[in-house]
Amino acid sequence: MILIGNELLSGRVQDANLHYLAGELWDLGCPVTRVLIVRDIVDEIAEATRTMSDLHRWVFTTGGIGPTHDDVTIEGVARAFDTKVIGHRGLEKRLREHFGERITEAHLRMARIPEGAVLTGADPEAWPTVRMKNVFIFAGIPAILRRKFPEIREELRSAPIFRETLFFRTAEAVIADTLHGAAQRFPDIEIGSYPQTGGEADTVQVTLEGADQERLRKAVVFLEQITADIERIR
Amino acid sequence: MILIGNELLSGRVQDANLHYLAGELWDLGCPVTRVLIVRDIVDEIAEATRTMSDLHRWVFTTGGIGPTHDDVTIEGVARAFDTKVIGHRGLEKRLREHFGERITEAHLRMARIPEGAVLTGADPEAWPTVRMKNVFIFAGIPAILRRKFPEIREELRSAPIFRETLFFRTAEAVIADTLHGAAQRFPDIEIGSYPQTGGEADTVQVTLEGADQERLRKAVVFLEQITADIERIR
Repeated sequence: MILIGNELLSGRVQDANLHYLAGELWDLGCPVTRVLIVRDIVDEIAEATRTMSDLHRWVFTTGGIGPTHDDVTIEGVARAFDTKVIGHRGLEKRLREHFGERITEAHLRMARIPEGAVLTGADPEAWPTVRMKNVFIFAGIPAILRRKFPEIREELRSAPIFRETLFFRTAEAVIADTLHGAAQRFPDIEIGSYPQTGGEADTVQVTLEGADQERLRKAVVFLEQITADIERIR
Repeated sequence: MILIGNELLSGRVQDANLHYLAGELWDLGCPVTRVLIVRDIVDEIAEATRTMSDLHRWVFTTGGIGPTHDDVTIEGVARAFDTKVIGHRGLEKRLREHFGERITEAHLRMARIPEGAVLTGADPEAWPTVRMKNVFIFAGIPAILRRKFPEIREELRSAPIFRETLFFRTAEAVIADTLHGAAQRFPDIEIGSYPQTGGEADTVQVTLEGADQERLRKAVVFLEQITADIERIR
């Protein structure tokens, strides 16, 4: 993912898109492995897009889409692929139908796409999502992302990943060696340890994740056996 | 900033550190310009640290600090600088004093630092923050970051940045050309436009930011003049 916007980097706005999209993509078997957050600067967006597009199966950008001068994501993605920005005839037509005589140059900026991009989205009546090669371009407004992403999600579905979660009433340091042993025994299962703060006593959330449900089940049973002396919660 | 942790990328946990630290650093005149979010993988942390350390004045990592096998930030930062991980004698001594006979190898992992790192923090009684060259290493637990960052913040203070915010009751497309004109007239002032959703009518938040308070004031007056026909809020 590439999150685009000065407001995220200046602390003015708390990003709400990573958490949503990362969860959705995880559920689709298509987990996020890296995120970049960059400013509304064409060259920075271009460099981030180029790097991420080369390294990853899919890239998702959020932010920098809109009618104002600081909305430069389309330019940035176009530059990443050494192509130019064009006005899409079909999108311009829809904007003209919608706004009629009130239409401005600013409105028409919404119809710009990198040359060679395709329009995706299951519903032909809905405003499409722009995809340039393996880069999906989304708006930064959380409500819009949550409306648009479901329209393309089935294009992304891969083999599922499974997750089990255990909660222990103990300090993380007490359980650390045990978890390390389980992680070594099950290298194909990703075991994460997250101390929970704010409660009355030390608790640790342990997650086990993997693509093979049977192996995951075995890792859970193994971990339950070697932690039999530690109190569990839930 | 480099945020480290599989849990941020799988959508299990909403990051709460970027928003806090970005706001603090902005207030110190030391704005964040780029963020990377990477997995708990030594090589990925090392590569991110190397890149960011080369490009930026300061780098802040959060996450991956702790006693368990998936806490590998110290290894990652050490590898970024081609150095090894050592146990810091003074920190080990403090841990032994604190835990006494209950101390484990997992506890002692908390005393590991990259060789050549320095311990910082204003309060000699408090647990220090580790800095390796220009990289400050923080825990990922939000409450801990909020306790530790203030101890080093005065090391970072730079010339302040100033910000003014105006709210307009209009659609973003209506005000876009006007904002573009102001941005061209005041290239040293960063003008951002953020449509606000969820209310009854279209509103746009416009921010103006700059290092020169007098120029900022002039940009605000200019913008107020050229938007005199648009309703303001607040």
